[in-house]
Amino acid sequence: MKVPVVRNILEANDRIAEQNREMFDQHNIFVLNLMSSPGAGKTSLLERTIEHLKDRINIGIIEGDIQSSYDAERIAQKGVEAVQINTGGACHLDGNMIREAVSQFDLDKLNLLVVENVGNLVCPAEFNVGEDMKIMILSVPEGDDKPLKYPLMFSLSKALIINKIDLLPYVDCSVEKIRDEASKLSPGVEIFEVSCRTGEGLEAWYEWVEKLIKDRR
Amino acid sequence: MKVPVVRNILEANDRIAEQNREMFDQHNIFVLNLMSSPGAGKTSLLERTIEHLKDRINIGIIEGDIQSSYDAERIAQKGVEAVQINTGGACHLDGNMIREAVSQFDLDKLNLLVVENVGNLVCPAEFNVGEDMKIMILSVPEGDDKPLKYPLMFSLSKALIINKIDLLPYVDCSVEKIRDEASKLSPGVEIFEVSCRTGEGLEAWYEWVEKLIKDRR
Repeated sequence: MKVPVVRNILEANDRIAEQNREMFDQHNIFVLNLMSSPGAGKTSLLERTIEHLKDRINIGIIEGDIQSSYDAERIAQKGVEAVQINTGGACHLDGNMIREAVSQFDLDKLNLLVVENVGNLVCPAEFNVGEDMKIMILSVPEGDDKPLKYPLMFSLSKALIINKIDLLPYVDCSVEKIRDEASKLSPGVEIFEVSCRTGEGLEAWYEWVEKLIKDRR
Repeated sequence: MKVPVVRNILEANDRIAEQNREMFDQHNIFVLNLMSSPGAGKTSLLERTIEHLKDRINIGIIEGDIQSSYDAERIAQKGVEAVQINTGGACHLDGNMIREAVSQFDLDKLNLLVVENVGNLVCPAEFNVGEDMKIMILSVPEGDDKPLKYPLMFSLSKALIINKIDLLPYVDCSVEKIRDEASKLSPGVEIFEVSCRTGEGLEAWYEWVEKLIKDRR
């Protein structure tokens, strides 16, 4: 008897991600897969973005965390639907987890679904979940060497949000260096310099998201 | 014909880690496994620690990164031996990688070996490398919710270095909350509040490391 072997766990995931993508397409939902280190500001960016866009765009959020439902509770307070995935130790979300979570939403009502991945600059980049676009946040206290050290995530991201620019006077970090390295890894990447704490720079980001969804319709 | 299956990749790793540990014991080397998010300050802490202790303690450093040898070069400039491991995509170091790297050192000359793990709050905690002790860094811009969201690493760490306290006036982060949650997860954890940028608070850390090594001899 032959033992069947899944040769490539990434290939198996890609098949499920592709099915998710077809489902999102059928419902005309734009899906962003948001990745970053722990504490770079994913949930803060979503809070701000929801506040600004929820009257014009129907937004759903899937929160990925090892455990706890802290982030989904923060998001739910902003008045949009949020589903928390607890990975139970796994360092990234995968297509199957998203398929399960999506069943909690009324898909006909959504225009935008944002998947907030587990805080991790490595593993989430390897697993598609069915998104239209991967985007990432780098916060300036993390340092300007991160594109060189974690190139896969930067190379796959179509937008890079450089967050916590209000801390630039107090840290050793060159935004120019980040811009240069990120643009080499992902040619044409959209870069936004923002502070989710003060609100600085977020208008350009809101406009870009809104245009993505309009262009899709 | 039976197909042998390694039932638990963690068990296989633990066996190699145990062999590493015996080797370190034979040479009377104290081994720290240093973990954190990307950009929390692992390399900066090591630079400061080497400057302060290298005249009294023989230190070796193993640097773990996805790719690049940027960190090992920073460390080598401080005048101690450093070996870079490139994991080629893997999100953590394991026992086998450390066994390979250790062959580059003259073990009879070392008192302290620090393994700087890949920047990641999740996966490195699951893989022993043969260390005496796991320790971790959390930087205050990452936020005070991290113990709740990444409990495994906090629960395994015998020391927690809270770094970048010079940024406390500019971020929303309660050191008290971090202390409380970390102490619940790892009772008796040693906590140091430091700034590797300004040097504040590092004396207590240096003394603690020196005492660990003296007590071992």
